[in-house]
Parts: sequence; C-alpha cells; structure tokens
Amino acid sequence: MTHKEVSFMPYVTVKMLEGRTEEQKKELVEKVTEAVKETTGAKEEAIVVFIEEMSKNHYAVGGKRLSDQ
Amino acid sequence: MTHKEVSFMPYVTVKMLEGRTEEQKKELVEKVTEAVKETTGAKEEAIVVFIEEMSKNHYAVGGKRLSDQ
Amino acid sequence: MTHKEVSFMPYVTVKMLEGRTEEQKKELVEKVTEAVKETTGAKEEAIVVFIEEMSKNHYAVGGKRLSDQ
Amino acid sequence: MTHKEVSFMPYVTVKMLEGRTEEQKKELVEKVTEAVKETTGAKEEAIVVFIEEMSKNHYAVGGKRLSDQ
Amino acid sequence: MTHKEVSFMPYVTVKMLEGRTEEQKKELVEKVTEAVKETTGAKEEAIVVFIEEMSKNHYAVGGKRLSDQ
Amino acid sequence: MTHKEVSFMPYVTVKMLEGRTEEQKKELVEKVTEAVKETTGAKEEAIVVFIEEMSKNHYAVGGKRLSDQ
Repeated sequence: MTHKEVSFMPYVTVKMLEGRTEEQKKELVEKVTEAVKETTGAKEEAIVVFIEEMSKNHYAVGGKRLSDQ
Repeated sequence: MTHKEVSFMPYVTVKMLEGRTEEQKKELVEKVTEAVKETTGAKEEAIVVFIEEMSKNHYAVGGKRLSDQ
Repeated sequence: MTHKEVSFMPYVTVKMLEGRTEEQKKELVEKVTEAVKETTGAKEEAIVVFIEEMSKNHYAVGGKRLSDQ
Repeated sequence: MTHKEVSFMPYVTVKMLEGRTEEQKKELVEKVTEAVKETTGAKEEAIVVFIEEMSKNHYAVGGKRLSDQ
Repeated sequence: MTHKEVSFMPYVTVKMLEGRTEEQKKELVEKVTEAVKETTGAKEEAIVVFIEEMSKNHYAVGGKRLSDQ
Repeated sequence: MTHKEVSFMPYVTVKMLEGRTEEQKKELVEKVTEAVKETTGAKEEAIVVFIEEMSKNHYAVGGKRLSDQ
C-alpha cells in the first residue's frame, strides 16, 4: 500500500450479544464496511471490522444482567 | 423499552484518524446504524455508535508512526 | 426515553480474571450501577455494565503471566 | 505485592459524556472501587478505574449523534 | 508501592488471531514488557499486558472475514 | 498483501499517562513492534500500534485518582 492509503485505516468494533448466525455476521461486516467506505473515503481494503460477542450473564442494563431477567 | 428490545443492543465503535468533517461523521453513524439494523435485526433506537479519533503521533503501522513518515 | 435521559448513558466495563461466581457477578453489576447512579446523576435504566473475563495465560504483570507464576 | 494480591486486579472503565465535575469524578471512582471491592473480594489497592469521556458529536443512539439532536 | 511508581503504569493490550502457542505468548509478554520498560521509564513490575484472541469468523479486512476467504 | 500476510495482523494498544515525549513514543512503537514481530511471526508491516493517553484525573488506583494524591 502507498503511504496515502495506509494513513487512513478505520477500525470498527461491533460488540453484541452472542446468537447471530454466521450468515448474519458475514453480511454485517460487508454492509458495515460499505457504510464506512462510502462516508469516510477510506479504501475498502483498509477497513477492518472486529466482532465481539457477549453472553447474557456478562451484560447488564439498569443493574440487571440479561441472564437474571 | 420492552425486555425484548433491550436484549439486543449492538455497540459499534469506529476508531479512525482525526480529520473527518462533522458532515462525514454524521453520515457515518447514520449509514453504519442502518447496516447494523439490516443485518442483525436490532431495533434502530437500540444501536449505539461511538467515534474514537486518533492523532498521527499515536498510530503506527510497521513500527512507524504516521507523524514520522 | 426523552432526549435528556438518552443524553447521559454511562457504559461501564469491568475486566477481571475468570473465577467469580454468578452470584458475585450479579451483585457486582448491581452495586456498580448503584455507585454510578449516585455519583453521576444518570438514570438507573440508562447505565450499562459489561463484564469481560481474562484467563491466567492472557494476563501478565511485570512481564510474567499469572499462569507462569 | 504478594502473588495472591497481584492475581486478582479488576480494571474498570467508565465511559461517559463529558461534563461531570471533578468532584463527581472523584466520588465516582471512590464509590465504584468500593462496589467492586465488596462484591469480588479484590483488595482495594488492586482496583484500577479509568474514566473515558465522549463528546456529543462522537456518540450516537439510533443513528443520530447527540450533537445533531 | 510508592506514589511515584503508581503514577506511571502502562497497560498494553495485544489483540491477535488465536493460534499462537503458550510458549509464544509467554515470550510475547516478556519482550513487550521489556520494550515498554526501556522506552518509557516505567518500572517492570508496573507494566501490565493483556492478550485478546480473535477467531477467524470475527475478524474482517476489506469487508471479508478471514473465515470466508 | 497476500492472503497469508493479511491473516495475522496483531493490534497493540498502549494505554499510559500523558507526559511521554515524542521521542519516547517513537521508540516505544519501534521496540514494541520489534518485540511482537520476533515472538509471533507476524510481518513487521502488518503490526499496528495505538497509543492512548490518560490524564491524572481520569485514572485511579485504590479508589484515589492520581490528581487527588
């Protein structure tokens, strides 16, 4: 890659509950990458997406874990 | 929000070099939110996007900071 | 939620070694949420807590992983 | 520190909108540290708290940044 | 620890694909800790390293997950 | 980059108190990159380092912010 391309590489992290299918995750990274490319001017090959999954006992809203609801 | 809606809230973080305009950031969060909604089934109002900006002296590829190139 | 409530949603991440019981984690998120509510003025239902667990081979202090001690 | 103390050090990150006063932040880390100590059995001196502040143009719910509302 | 030592504790996170051996991870944290110590002046015992592993279906470059290539 | 090279890209984040000089940061990313390359087998040009700085009022050990000590 040239200097210019290297100089703008967006890193996207999607944190969500486990349970999405592989097909959903595949489409998720495709569509999110497209959205970032269109709006920031980054080259597609420079856009990185990480998926992070949470389990229901490690995620709480309002002091209550999803696993306790 | 009902239980069901609360139970799937994706959190998206976009980390990128500083320099994008407010208009670009506005469109970025709109398009990324749309992409996440379409592919994961999350409700739009439950999708959260954070932008994190880096400066060129705090980001290195191949051992070289962008500010040193 | 109204605009005002949405505008202050603290996100808390607790990163710790695996091994805490479900009861400990349940109380952890309750007490931490209470602490954030009391001190920041955030609405309880707007406070989000994530737990992230580490294993002993992925955590080092002073150059030594806990699994190597 | 002895081995035992080192082996359980929770790291807490509180991510929130800028605007809290120094007094609020001071109390926030005190109360959160106390909550983590009580519920996990960690020694007080081993508990670390980071505060991360966001600006309104870098935080969006439902595809809309707070600065655009 | 004295005040001075506490006041500069670097936290290093290495995020990488799963698959490195325990021996590689052991050396990784040793060498990274040494590098941080030499260049920042931090005390060795104050340097913390976290390893975070990703699977190939949770990591994408250019809109394509490694598991789809 | 070929597929093989893309498939192992470590991302290193160094979180530390503000105050290091540009020269220290420059050496830090060089040495850390070298350490990761030697121990993981990653290509140098695929290693990414981010620096994140904290201020003393946003960092607490034992319930006390550095700015309050």
